[in-house]
Amino acid sequence: MITTKAGKPVTDAEIFAAHEGGKLGIEITTAFEDARSLATAYTPGVARVSRAIAADPALAAHYTWAGRLVAVVTDGTAVLGLGDIGPQAALPVMEGKAMALKKFAGLDAVPLVLSTTDVDEIVETVVRLRHSFGAVSLEDISAPRCFEVEARLAEALDCPVMHDDQHGTAIAVLAALRGACAVLGRSLRSRRVVVHGAGAAGVACAAILLAAGVRDVTVLDSRGILVPGRAGMNPVKAALAERTNPRRLHGGAAVALRDADVFVGVSGSRVPPELITGMAPDPVVFALSSPDPEVDPDALGGYAAVTGTGAADRPNQVINTLASPGVYLGALDAGARRITESMKIAAADAIAEVAAPDLAPDRVVPHSLDPRVTPAVARAVRAAALQESPEPEWNFR
Amino acid sequence: MITTKAGKPVTDAEIFAAHEGGKLGIEITTAFEDARSLATAYTPGVARVSRAIAADPALAAHYTWAGRLVAVVTDGTAVLGLGDIGPQAALPVMEGKAMALKKFAGLDAVPLVLSTTDVDEIVETVVRLRHSFGAVSLEDISAPRCFEVEARLAEALDCPVMHDDQHGTAIAVLAALRGACAVLGRSLRSRRVVVHGAGAAGVACAAILLAAGVRDVTVLDSRGILVPGRAGMNPVKAALAERTNPRRLHGGAAVALRDADVFVGVSGSRVPPELITGMAPDPVVFALSSPDPEVDPDALGGYAAVTGTGAADRPNQVINTLASPGVYLGALDAGARRITESMKIAAADAIAEVAAPDLAPDRVVPHSLDPRVTPAVARAVRAAALQESPEPEWNFR
Repeated sequence: MITTKAGKPVTDAEIFAAHEGGKLGIEITTAFEDARSLATAYTPGVARVSRAIAADPALAAHYTWAGRLVAVVTDGTAVLGLGDIGPQAALPVMEGKAMALKKFAGLDAVPLVLSTTDVDEIVETVVRLRHSFGAVSLEDISAPRCFEVEARLAEALDCPVMHDDQHGTAIAVLAALRGACAVLGRSLRSRRVVVHGAGAAGVACAAILLAAGVRDVTVLDSRGILVPGRAGMNPVKAALAERTNPRRLHGGAAVALRDADVFVGVSGSRVPPELITGMAPDPVVFALSSPDPEVDPDALGGYAAVTGTGAADRPNQVINTLASPGVYLGALDAGARRITESMKIAAADAIAEVAAPDLAPDRVVPHSLDPRVTPAVARAVRAAALQESPEPEWNFR
Repeated sequence: MITTKAGKPVTDAEIFAAHEGGKLGIEITTAFEDARSLATAYTPGVARVSRAIAADPALAAHYTWAGRLVAVVTDGTAVLGLGDIGPQAALPVMEGKAMALKKFAGLDAVPLVLSTTDVDEIVETVVRLRHSFGAVSLEDISAPRCFEVEARLAEALDCPVMHDDQHGTAIAVLAALRGACAVLGRSLRSRRVVVHGAGAAGVACAAILLAAGVRDVTVLDSRGILVPGRAGMNPVKAALAERTNPRRLHGGAAVALRDADVFVGVSGSRVPPELITGMAPDPVVFALSSPDPEVDPDALGGYAAVTGTGAADRPNQVINTLASPGVYLGALDAGARRITESMKIAAADAIAEVAAPDLAPDRVVPHSLDPRVTPAVARAVRAAALQESPEPEWNFR
């Protein structure tokens, strides 16, 4: 049973009732009710539009829904904290992602769940569907395959592609850290940050923190600290080991966390509270695994100066829906072909700016339903995209 | 410029304005506005539903939109009368098909346009997407590839698959012929029928007429009458030649049409009016190619007893939207795995029954906007499906 902040329980019966028949539908957005409107929007009128697009394919972005449609793509291998539950069981989550894109950014999105976990086949399938949509949101694909899928699709497709679990989370973490550092009057760049988890989210969090100038980032996987030469690292972890852990620490969480300033938990596992209370004074603790955070903030006896989780019913919900809807909206508005590091950092800065006027230890990020967030992110991402590439590359509005 | 029956022209400006931003959108069909409804419909509540589907995949049909979602799939090789214009230019037509499914049958549908024309790749792609939808409407795929794509997908997928250009058209033709024969007081089975065109629609029209008991069906392609041993026939035409043309006619349209009772034009080409006026007295002439029918009914000097075209602004619009929305609705309601010949004939009979009370030479089929048609077709198709397979095979309502 799930409880909300107000304490009113959400029952299973309510949950299943809310999912009856699914959570998405199609609406017709043009007149389609009499012979005249049918002749305009369907045969024979539609042939005029098809002919025009055949002559100039760029018109498809303007005269079909595909130009601004987001394909929400998964293979169901890393769904929430549930793991590899397959494409059918992933569908309700993908519908939720599509709902978030619609609600926050006004973007249409369609779930595509794949019955293959082969990287080549995933890439090939999405490439064949290219003209059905205008952007790709990769979701809940397990690491390390997710890195290759994202990189290859970004290369193959002339439209924005982003693995939400990586970058949506990373953007929200950077925004929340900016807020926390501002509250504490400290410099982000000189914080010692420990990223607990080296899956999709952990790798992306480390990358965005490095890109934002943080000098001391240490990443842990289930075997301990990533350090060059360590055994059991896939190529992505090995590359990350080279770029992180400047003090070349060896060991586990206890070593990494000693005197650290910031804990970012994206591991799906647990951390003993005494390791957190062994951090430097007044640490920032983001325990983001859901539904069970790495450490219960209430178990820290007030040692942490700022805490955050993935839950809506606690202070500081650090969640990718703060980021992704605005990122896709901004990228599509700019006609961007790629979602670049500078666009992601601009998104994080925009979220932090929305939070800035009301900053407090329990308000380092805006509420996930704050209607100012997505438009601010979209504006910032669009501006960053246009600065990198002033001419829209393939799309237009 | 397109004119409607009332003579008011539909301008290109109106057509393009109606297509701005596309003709489809996504709507959220459950509560999703506050922390409580987000916790119910999205994280963490959604995990309960995903877990339930992981334990029992059949629940996906009930708790996601996919169970009743129609994938409208094309490779853009035979779009309307425009030919091979590619996936992007096909999109406005596919959006129109999705609109028709929504408007007439209340079914959600999503266009998937493929950047491959390879049969293996088309089949493979749709199979990989299987769990994203509950039925497949194949559209505007050129012959003879369309036959193989349909057959292989029907074999591979445990859900209804139909090539609309074939069977939607064939069902409407059979319904219209039943109406025409009733008006003329003649037996359908003993009519001599000429099908002009041996592409997707022509092959399916011949097949459904044979299945309905018509004994003398002759099919023409651009080289003339299909007859066993003739040169230049693909395997589908060769098989059809064995089953049709019982008098083993050789030659062209003039030979086939001499003394014929019914002309069904689905060829995209023209037929000289004098060949029609050389048919048996009071013939039925369905010239269904669009936008230009095989022969202009007005050029026949009243020789034909019944005429029909694909146009909305003439009497007797014989169009697949009379059939397909109800076929998919009925098949999904029945949980049918296949769309069989008996379901198609039941659909045609249902359309004919709606037309029956008001039959007249200019009303042998119901109007395409008649709201009684799709529900009647759906009921008939569902009943036919349940008679063949009383237990729903994979879906439920």
